[in-house]
Amino acid sequence: MLFKNINILDENLELKQNMYIGIKGDKIDYIGTEMPKQDYGERYEGKGKLLMSGFFNSHAHTPMTLMRGYGENMSLQSWLNDRIFPFEAKLNGEDVYYATLLGIAESVRFGIVSTTDMYYFCDRMADAILESGVKNNLGRGLTCFTDEDLKDLIAYKESKELYEKYHNSGNGRIKVDMSLHAEYTSNPKIVRQFAEFTKEIGANMHVHVSETQKEHEECKQRHGKTPIEYFNDLGLLDSKTTAAHCVWVEDNDMDIMLEKGVTVASCPVSNLKLASGVCNVPRMLEKGINVAIGTDSVASNNSLNYIEEIKFFTLLNKEKHKDPTLVTPKQALYAATRAGALGQGRADTGKLAEGYKADLIVLDISDVHMFPVHNLVNNVVYSASGSDVVLTMVDGKPVYRDGEYLTIDIEKVKYEVENSKNRILASLS
Amino acid sequence: MLFKNINILDENLELKQNMYIGIKGDKIDYIGTEMPKQDYGERYEGKGKLLMSGFFNSHAHTPMTLMRGYGENMSLQSWLNDRIFPFEAKLNGEDVYYATLLGIAESVRFGIVSTTDMYYFCDRMADAILESGVKNNLGRGLTCFTDEDLKDLIAYKESKELYEKYHNSGNGRIKVDMSLHAEYTSNPKIVRQFAEFTKEIGANMHVHVSETQKEHEECKQRHGKTPIEYFNDLGLLDSKTTAAHCVWVEDNDMDIMLEKGVTVASCPVSNLKLASGVCNVPRMLEKGINVAIGTDSVASNNSLNYIEEIKFFTLLNKEKHKDPTLVTPKQALYAATRAGALGQGRADTGKLAEGYKADLIVLDISDVHMFPVHNLVNNVVYSASGSDVVLTMVDGKPVYRDGEYLTIDIEKVKYEVENSKNRILASLS
Repeated sequence: MLFKNINILDENLELKQNMYIGIKGDKIDYIGTEMPKQDYGERYEGKGKLLMSGFFNSHAHTPMTLMRGYGENMSLQSWLNDRIFPFEAKLNGEDVYYATLLGIAESVRFGIVSTTDMYYFCDRMADAILESGVKNNLGRGLTCFTDEDLKDLIAYKESKELYEKYHNSGNGRIKVDMSLHAEYTSNPKIVRQFAEFTKEIGANMHVHVSETQKEHEECKQRHGKTPIEYFNDLGLLDSKTTAAHCVWVEDNDMDIMLEKGVTVASCPVSNLKLASGVCNVPRMLEKGINVAIGTDSVASNNSLNYIEEIKFFTLLNKEKHKDPTLVTPKQALYAATRAGALGQGRADTGKLAEGYKADLIVLDISDVHMFPVHNLVNNVVYSASGSDVVLTMVDGKPVYRDGEYLTIDIEKVKYEVENSKNRILASLS
Repeated sequence: MLFKNINILDENLELKQNMYIGIKGDKIDYIGTEMPKQDYGERYEGKGKLLMSGFFNSHAHTPMTLMRGYGENMSLQSWLNDRIFPFEAKLNGEDVYYATLLGIAESVRFGIVSTTDMYYFCDRMADAILESGVKNNLGRGLTCFTDEDLKDLIAYKESKELYEKYHNSGNGRIKVDMSLHAEYTSNPKIVRQFAEFTKEIGANMHVHVSETQKEHEECKQRHGKTPIEYFNDLGLLDSKTTAAHCVWVEDNDMDIMLEKGVTVASCPVSNLKLASGVCNVPRMLEKGINVAIGTDSVASNNSLNYIEEIKFFTLLNKEKHKDPTLVTPKQALYAATRAGALGQGRADTGKLAEGYKADLIVLDISDVHMFPVHNLVNNVVYSASGSDVVLTMVDGKPVYRDGEYLTIDIEKVKYEVENSKNRILASLS
């Protein structure tokens, strides 16, 4: 495909106008101000459009689309115990497969090209990911409430099988990460063993860290250490780690995270909705930590509207620190793109540069809410609507375009998800 | 028009499915489960759609669309002094006319049927409002930095003329409110005189109150009273008042506001973006104060994406009070609709009931991000995208439908706004 006469946000997130972008195979082959001589196939007219890197969702539980709006305005404990856990206990692989496809459809509709996921029935999630053409860092969430050895845990066996079967499959679109649920749902022996296994195979680690004050403080009481200190001492952060939330991390934690190259997946909407707090993004950026953005699950968001997530990400810390200069639009867009790609171990994507993977989106910038333009980066971050995405391309292939889901039979998916929902609700009543 | 087979949120914001709604003139004439016998003209197929009351934007400065994204990531003082004030000093009536039309287009695109506005060149704003078919509580912002009498202020004369010429014009679509800018931009004599004049003519009052901590505390130092106590003592709240922001009001202020029937226009996005704080909505609702929602200006938001504003409105107080049960979806939708209408003195609108004004919107609820439906009210508040609005109707007349601005020549407006922007920027450089 050749994009012509299009505005772009270049690799430095600077606006360039009237550009030509040629896609060959899964890569960006050409970026220039002149019409290229090579024939790239379909010509995409770029007038009134903006081409930029796709978004990286650095923390999600995609199949939870099935629970959108199911438990609302409840305390965290009541939400989990009365709604989420009983519902999840009824899920089967087919439910997860179709709910994943629904979540992928929503993701690409809002410009997400790659997601870091933690859930279960991950083999069926892998099927959905491979079929639909998106990227995913997939992990089977591991918990342990007994004193078993790692080797005896089903979640370990599934993680290992998943890694052997799917890691780097689909042209590298799937990466299998090891996923430890959290400190409070495991124990030091398991953490140490899982850390060693993860290092041994060279996988990434994905873990919930200091999401709530309760979690953070109780860890300190139990172990005399913060979750980050605890995980670091057990070797977990020796693997390339994405730490989701990090709302309550302390200054020393941040120094450890920087030293260990941990990526923070900040989930601003979910952290508000569950009343967890506001992640101290400016302090992390100041220290040089790689900060990315996640939506968390649709059950606690309740959407995958990524542009909306970016707006929350920029605004919350201005108020928290009473300083409107904090978290600039460009910092937010970097977190949404390149920082996310780097956190997923995908150095070959997340920015618009020749030779990089063609994981791209096009925004329609012609509607009234994007006008006038004093500064297009400001408009994208503060004024755009999530639905302004009109094209999402992964590895050079369009997966969403102008209302059409090009790799997903969306009516079939909705039909099956509705059936899953009704079966589970009937069995719970 | 007859809406058929459509989902609605009824006057109690409860979902009803497969309904028929007949519009006659400017009113909702029929709501029922049966096809009405009367012929209402065009039949609107409602499958996959939701009909509900339109949104009421309870605090805005509509012409500031012209400054969208112009000053970003600056301190409040630098934003005002280096960007907004110099730009505004160059505005003329034609600039304001076209910028108002642009803002109205964006408003109806996002489902806003009526706006409480404070600005200047209000006669040209009135032209734009009358031509485009929307509703507006229009006010000429009054400031006074001298010891003149009210009668000698240009803003007073313009307010009076505006009231005489436009109040209740356009089938009552325009109401002219008296607009005092704020405590710190006026003095007690002017406040008292303006309060008396407002009472005398029976107009509404619109005023900024306790937006920033600085404003609130300095008022206490100057007068030994909070802004609300100060305004109350000077008689300002004896008229039906909309108090914008109210971020820093205290408990006693809230008691006064309840007693005086003051409507709060909470502006959550602007308050974050300018680092002002989070309005204590749950406490106000608990006391029984009428709390509505405003976008504030596009220069400090930077959009009129009202559904996004509702999401911020619900979520911020959950985190502020560390309680996810606070500000329910239904409370938020009430604030967005009926509370806004009542605050504007429009008792005949803001809810879906027979005999009420047909100020309505239709949302497309068929896209993936609104699926599945466990509870449609939850989905509207937490999952909908601003752009899901596909029809906006005011006084029974469609003003926006499926991407078309039915009462505004949008290409002409964009052309003129671009010219205004370029002329002003050139004169500033």
